[in-house]
Amino acid sequence: MEEIRQNIITRDWVIISKTRAGRPNEFAGKKKERQVLPAYDSRCPFCAGNEHETLDESFAIRGNDGWRVRVVPNKFAALSPHGQRNRRVAGVFRSMPAVGIQEVVIEHPRHDTTLALMPEAHVADVIRAYRQRYEHVRKDERIEAIIIFKNHGEAAGTSLQHPHSQLVATPIVPNQFRVRIDESIRYFDDMGECVYCRTIAEELASRERVIEENEHFVAFIPYAALSPYHMWIFPKRHASSFDDITDAEVMSLAPILKSVLARLYVALDDPDYNYSIRSLPTAGLRTEYFHWYVTIIPRITKTAGFEFGSGMFINTSVPEESAAVLRDVEVDRL
Amino acid sequence: MEEIRQNIITRDWVIISKTRAGRPNEFAGKKKERQVLPAYDSRCPFCAGNEHETLDESFAIRGNDGWRVRVVPNKFAALSPHGQRNRRVAGVFRSMPAVGIQEVVIEHPRHDTTLALMPEAHVADVIRAYRQRYEHVRKDERIEAIIIFKNHGEAAGTSLQHPHSQLVATPIVPNQFRVRIDESIRYFDDMGECVYCRTIAEELASRERVIEENEHFVAFIPYAALSPYHMWIFPKRHASSFDDITDAEVMSLAPILKSVLARLYVALDDPDYNYSIRSLPTAGLRTEYFHWYVTIIPRITKTAGFEFGSGMFINTSVPEESAAVLRDVEVDRL
Repeated sequence: MEEIRQNIITRDWVIISKTRAGRPNEFAGKKKERQVLPAYDSRCPFCAGNEHETLDESFAIRGNDGWRVRVVPNKFAALSPHGQRNRRVAGVFRSMPAVGIQEVVIEHPRHDTTLALMPEAHVADVIRAYRQRYEHVRKDERIEAIIIFKNHGEAAGTSLQHPHSQLVATPIVPNQFRVRIDESIRYFDDMGECVYCRTIAEELASRERVIEENEHFVAFIPYAALSPYHMWIFPKRHASSFDDITDAEVMSLAPILKSVLARLYVALDDPDYNYSIRSLPTAGLRTEYFHWYVTIIPRITKTAGFEFGSGMFINTSVPEESAAVLRDVEVDRL
Repeated sequence: MEEIRQNIITRDWVIISKTRAGRPNEFAGKKKERQVLPAYDSRCPFCAGNEHETLDESFAIRGNDGWRVRVVPNKFAALSPHGQRNRRVAGVFRSMPAVGIQEVVIEHPRHDTTLALMPEAHVADVIRAYRQRYEHVRKDERIEAIIIFKNHGEAAGTSLQHPHSQLVATPIVPNQFRVRIDESIRYFDDMGECVYCRTIAEELASRERVIEENEHFVAFIPYAALSPYHMWIFPKRHASSFDDITDAEVMSLAPILKSVLARLYVALDDPDYNYSIRSLPTAGLRTEYFHWYVTIIPRITKTAGFEFGSGMFINTSVPEESAAVLRDVEVDRL
């Protein structure tokens, strides 16, 4: 019999279709042949040497050979840094000016690399750039939520191959944030503890879905993963906002993030994926109920009418089996 | 200045990116060349003549020349009609057996047609089949929600080209249903009216986003449409559950559903799309606050990390402009 599982954090029910699930590696090699990229592309605005193609740098981390990570405003932003967030209300129609901040984090000077292949020290610089921008942007009083995310590959929605991630800061709290926070408050009120902390304790006790663990972080496939190889990385220390990450935690997140992406790279042949950092709305900083984390979603299956019509997902893989596949990957050579 | 709009029904905020929006027809012709299909395909389990390839028929509408619409159990169902919905709870891990019903509605005996091209009388038969199955399935006391949906084209998640839709009946109420119903109750408690009825009144008063209207239905682009050409069809009469649809309303829904799909077919060159019918969980039948409807989502843009990480959408088209494009399409010849 197949199983329906509830993700107690999001409260979403997921149909885990074991009989539909094929062999563990059924998702690999489905994608079209990936082209070999040059180290430098003269048409790429993010390549070292083409800095004049971007808007004025907001931040950079530099080494002896020039910049290592660079942050620039998004040239094609839908949100503008100018203006006020005044509501316009006319009956059921509510709107406001599209005020906000959109930045691009250029992760590396080279065109032909990706986080899975970068040295851990370089991934740590990318995370430091995220933190610096998060801390800076949260000072803007018009901003309510900051979303840091990455689109890797065409199926994940990117148009530029140069390794980069994005920051979008919105003048409203997205409704989905509110819904999840309300649920975490309910759990805290009922049980007197953070539902994320409880999940870490139970995942570490069971180990069935744990991919990797280090001093400050644990990476696992959620019990009710929405789709094949959907992964979460949780900080072990209870903290609600991403920018609360300590220097020691940055040094711990970098190797585990690189490592799980490298496992995906090997196991699924460099799949397209999205990741995002889920953090508290900026009005708060420390709460007892919310816990920031990283979510990674390989884009190897399609959503269809059932998902749109219900908000539920059918996952054609078994979380425990996917975790075992990823645990077994040899990533030392990357 | 771009605009952020709130959908008062779903409470989702959407960034409407006017400056990113290209000409109205920028979304047409992006898809790969569609192959010409045969009227009959010997390998297709849904073609007339191949009935032995499907499981035993649950329902059919027949004419003088044989069946017109046929409903069969889904051969590759993730949910089983057998068993009980007993919860298994171990700490934060909650699951239950995957009990439920999955059926396929074969919309036409022919392989090479689609709802946009069918006679209205045939589309009415498809809707009657939906209603009959909905009424039948709701009698099963293990069922909490019934989702009827369609995946048209590969980008919309279908693997079979023969025109068909699906019914999935789940033993739980999807969390997204609960969240939206709670919101409709809040609106009703605050304002003393149904938020959907209020939206119909305001959309008909403004007409800016209305595509088409007939005796019993109105089709429009939502004010805060999630993506280009996202459409809603609302029944004008307040009713919470799809199976409450009257015979007269079926005869009114068929032409407007066919017509809006035909407008899409012409304007965007037969785009891939999903639609689904949003209806009350089966525990209820008539409420003052919830209103059933049809939602149509053309699959012409991709979701990426921002959408995953926030639940918000960036719509690169302007609802009023898209509605004007669809209103102007000549569909009489189809």
